[in-house]
Amino acid sequence: MQITLAQLNYHIGNFEGNLAQMKTAIEKAKADGSDLICFSELSTCGYPPRDFLEFRDFIHQSMAVITELCSLSYDLAIVVGAPSVNPEVEGKDLYNSAFFLFDGKVQYIANKALLPNYDIFDEYRYFEPNKDFTIVEYKGKKIAITICEDIWNLGNENPMYKIVPMDEMMRYNPDFILNLSASPFSYDHANERNEVIRANVLKYKIPMFYVNSFGSQTDIIFDGGSVVMSPDGLAFDEMPFFESCQRNYDLEEVIRGGINKEQEKQKIPLIHSALVLGIKDYFAKLNLKSAILGLSGGIDSALTCVLAVKALGKDNITALLMPSQYSSEGSVVDAKALAINLGIKYEIIAIESVYKSYADILQPYFAGLAPNVTEENIQARIRGMLLMAFSNKFGSILLNTTNKSEMAVGYGTMYGDLCGGLAVLADVYKTQVYELAHYVNRNEMIIPQNSITKPPSAELRPGQKDSDSLPDYSILDPILYQYIEQRKGPNEIIEQGHDPAIVLRSCRMVNRAEFKRYQSPPVLRISSKSFGLGRRLPIEGKYLD
Amino acid sequence: MQITLAQLNYHIGNFEGNLAQMKTAIEKAKADGSDLICFSELSTCGYPPRDFLEFRDFIHQSMAVITELCSLSYDLAIVVGAPSVNPEVEGKDLYNSAFFLFDGKVQYIANKALLPNYDIFDEYRYFEPNKDFTIVEYKGKKIAITICEDIWNLGNENPMYKIVPMDEMMRYNPDFILNLSASPFSYDHANERNEVIRANVLKYKIPMFYVNSFGSQTDIIFDGGSVVMSPDGLAFDEMPFFESCQRNYDLEEVIRGGINKEQEKQKIPLIHSALVLGIKDYFAKLNLKSAILGLSGGIDSALTCVLAVKALGKDNITALLMPSQYSSEGSVVDAKALAINLGIKYEIIAIESVYKSYADILQPYFAGLAPNVTEENIQARIRGMLLMAFSNKFGSILLNTTNKSEMAVGYGTMYGDLCGGLAVLADVYKTQVYELAHYVNRNEMIIPQNSITKPPSAELRPGQKDSDSLPDYSILDPILYQYIEQRKGPNEIIEQGHDPAIVLRSCRMVNRAEFKRYQSPPVLRISSKSFGLGRRLPIEGKYLD
Repeated sequence: MQITLAQLNYHIGNFEGNLAQMKTAIEKAKADGSDLICFSELSTCGYPPRDFLEFRDFIHQSMAVITELCSLSYDLAIVVGAPSVNPEVEGKDLYNSAFFLFDGKVQYIANKALLPNYDIFDEYRYFEPNKDFTIVEYKGKKIAITICEDIWNLGNENPMYKIVPMDEMMRYNPDFILNLSASPFSYDHANERNEVIRANVLKYKIPMFYVNSFGSQTDIIFDGGSVVMSPDGLAFDEMPFFESCQRNYDLEEVIRGGINKEQEKQKIPLIHSALVLGIKDYFAKLNLKSAILGLSGGIDSALTCVLAVKALGKDNITALLMPSQYSSEGSVVDAKALAINLGIKYEIIAIESVYKSYADILQPYFAGLAPNVTEENIQARIRGMLLMAFSNKFGSILLNTTNKSEMAVGYGTMYGDLCGGLAVLADVYKTQVYELAHYVNRNEMIIPQNSITKPPSAELRPGQKDSDSLPDYSILDPILYQYIEQRKGPNEIIEQGHDPAIVLRSCRMVNRAEFKRYQSPPVLRISSKSFGLGRRLPIEGKYLD
Repeated sequence: MQITLAQLNYHIGNFEGNLAQMKTAIEKAKADGSDLICFSELSTCGYPPRDFLEFRDFIHQSMAVITELCSLSYDLAIVVGAPSVNPEVEGKDLYNSAFFLFDGKVQYIANKALLPNYDIFDEYRYFEPNKDFTIVEYKGKKIAITICEDIWNLGNENPMYKIVPMDEMMRYNPDFILNLSASPFSYDHANERNEVIRANVLKYKIPMFYVNSFGSQTDIIFDGGSVVMSPDGLAFDEMPFFESCQRNYDLEEVIRGGINKEQEKQKIPLIHSALVLGIKDYFAKLNLKSAILGLSGGIDSALTCVLAVKALGKDNITALLMPSQYSSEGSVVDAKALAINLGIKYEIIAIESVYKSYADILQPYFAGLAPNVTEENIQARIRGMLLMAFSNKFGSILLNTTNKSEMAVGYGTMYGDLCGGLAVLADVYKTQVYELAHYVNRNEMIIPQNSITKPPSAELRPGQKDSDSLPDYSILDPILYQYIEQRKGPNEIIEQGHDPAIVLRSCRMVNRAEFKRYQSPPVLRISSKSFGLGRRLPIEGKYLD
């Protein structure tokens, strides 16, 4: 049996576009003499469709795609992910399903049993979990169809679920496992995923065909890397990351095994590729081309700019350099050097005159009061406004350049440097920003050395340094990681050997900055715990305060 | 048996404050000779604690409150809502529980079975659903302890759940039902709630003691209105809405019934009270006192200002009037009249000089391009920046004055009039804003007549009216309600008799404005579907577009 996996990039709610892609893939599979083509989870409508699933009309449109695909299923079987209506009155209205199409008809529907409902996932919001396990027979082979999370409970130490779907399906002695996934990238997830697939094939002694989607959905980046794993636990094939791919596999060869095509996975290059794809796809799916950003001469905006150029091309990037009286001479020099290295358009607009006009009209009210964060914020906001004016006038999207360390502790100005349509680095800790900058510069000096080596500064008052307000990033970042990614309380973090006062101060800063993050742009997610819908915390909470 | 219900206002993560309140209530109940005091759902830690529940440290702090309460349980039983650790390895780590404390010990733990996971609710993200139903005996009475949603599945037409918890508990012949709730306000929910309680007592023929919390948690407003319902289906008592209350009830008298203290529930006065509480509690829980807002002379900012004065007192409100060259003479006059009526501080700051300074530095780049939304946005953003400057300088919070109709279709400027710490009216449709204004003016003319009667305008270009860009609100609002609250697709809305072109255009505007709402302030929730965490939609979705 010839099995085709199609690793595609779906667009939420773009039924026409998603169908067109699948049609092309089906034609190619037919031309290649395939018996079965498998697409990924919820591929008719894109993943995650979120509350669009509550619209009956949306489900109808997805079902219309299934009907179309049925008409193409005469020569090969098509397995496609889509929501299906729960026929029972009791329980949620929908299942997260895989439709098995052949001979012009829906032959079988497999429903997802394990519904992730943590981090960015909300599947129990919409779907009823499957409790009834069967398999489908096709051309003499028995197929266990699973959907994403279904293969992730193997009875580990503290399982979230009470059911092991493949244990249930093994009663029917399936010949192989199909898994339709929409599994998002995080830098530690790709290896973990292969370990889970390996544990499954070794436990059940049958091969698995695992097909993931790729492409970003605003903040969430799907990385592809679809895998065919032989029963010997070796990766018969692993598709590339972050790109489209369609390949055919001979079932007997896969069962035979002995081939290992697992790719090496290096954290920093993967993060780099993920961010580039995240930017590129955001613009593509919004049907926009050009970006604007502010270049401060610092490392965060420099790295953002490099990634944007790789994603959108140098002709589509405009940078504004907006010095004030507090900007160091080096800032403009470094920013200019980067713009020239990258060959992008840039403009230098000094902000003093606008700042002075604000100062003048505020003078009657602020007279006699010492300058404080108010005046610093005005500068940051003037820059935000100029960037937004360019964005509005030229139809380009403003890229936000805040890093995760700053976003965590609230070191940024709302409606100022926190503006933007997409926050490119806000899931990348400052210490990782340096690693990425070195990676970018690995062959040639793209980011000026001075942007990398000078002490970080917001340059909003004379001689200001980040270290005036924050612990050194080498101390802060590991604490933030424990608090944010690992959800350790202050005492647990202190027990690891960190300074108690710094730990408590850092955790409190994170909690107190919740109101800023609430209004921040969507953040490209590259870690296991990014800011945004995957991390839900109260603004008014008093925990640790 | 004497039963005390305590309707209190909890603060998320403020274990000390929550415990102190409960201690006071317990002392009073003891002095009154009560046998049992019942607090509401998750009252140790506040509801909804969200991802704080993922911190082991947070659960420990909640358990420390339980231990403290145990030491007070020698003379009366205490029933209190708190998370409890799931002792099983399999399943989620926590239960949403009610602890029954007596004689210095935890005598019994009831776990919630029906976990709401829709709209603003995410309980399945954290909690394992209970499957094992028992009751507790105390002083010769059998008590069925239920938590909020547990009483909401009575086998209705399309139930979300497969279990009816009270059906299970009736096997033990309980004498009465206790229900610990954290049930949020929406203007159509208070009556619905009583109908559900009534259906329960009529079905099971035993009384229910239903205790809700009150107070807001940023966007979500809990309204209290705790109810004691006799087996005859009459409300033996109904506590006031939006305030603290503690009362004792004699079980025998409640069983006897025949008393009806159900309060009349009028939509507009309830919304009015909810919004005032929402503002008041937001400031109280953040330990802040003063607010600032912009007064345009229009009805939205006028109503917001009135509500803020009621919540915080006139001495804590400052208004900025920020006319531009496009402001009508009447705007400043109307805004001033309101400020004077309310007795609040106000300042008039013309924005032309700042606008000119922006125009000057942008001139080299925008020369030859026609003025468009860019220039309108600059005006709105200058106002936002001035308000934020006052907010920063004087430590006051900016109140956002956008209404739900505008927020829905994206009729507002990001980082401009969409700024603010809290959006007071963004769940109130424009047509409801008028109703509220009339309610405010029912006894005396507080909001100037002209603010109510003049055609709505953003006044960002000469002669601009909302109706240039939007359908009339009387046409738009019902369409928005069908699309947002009722999740009807365009065809379903058109079938109701609305104009097809307007319906499609309106729904598309809502979808396309998702990126603006993503960065908008938290919205005081008064409807069944408010913008914010209760409505989750993709930014890049292409549905209907």
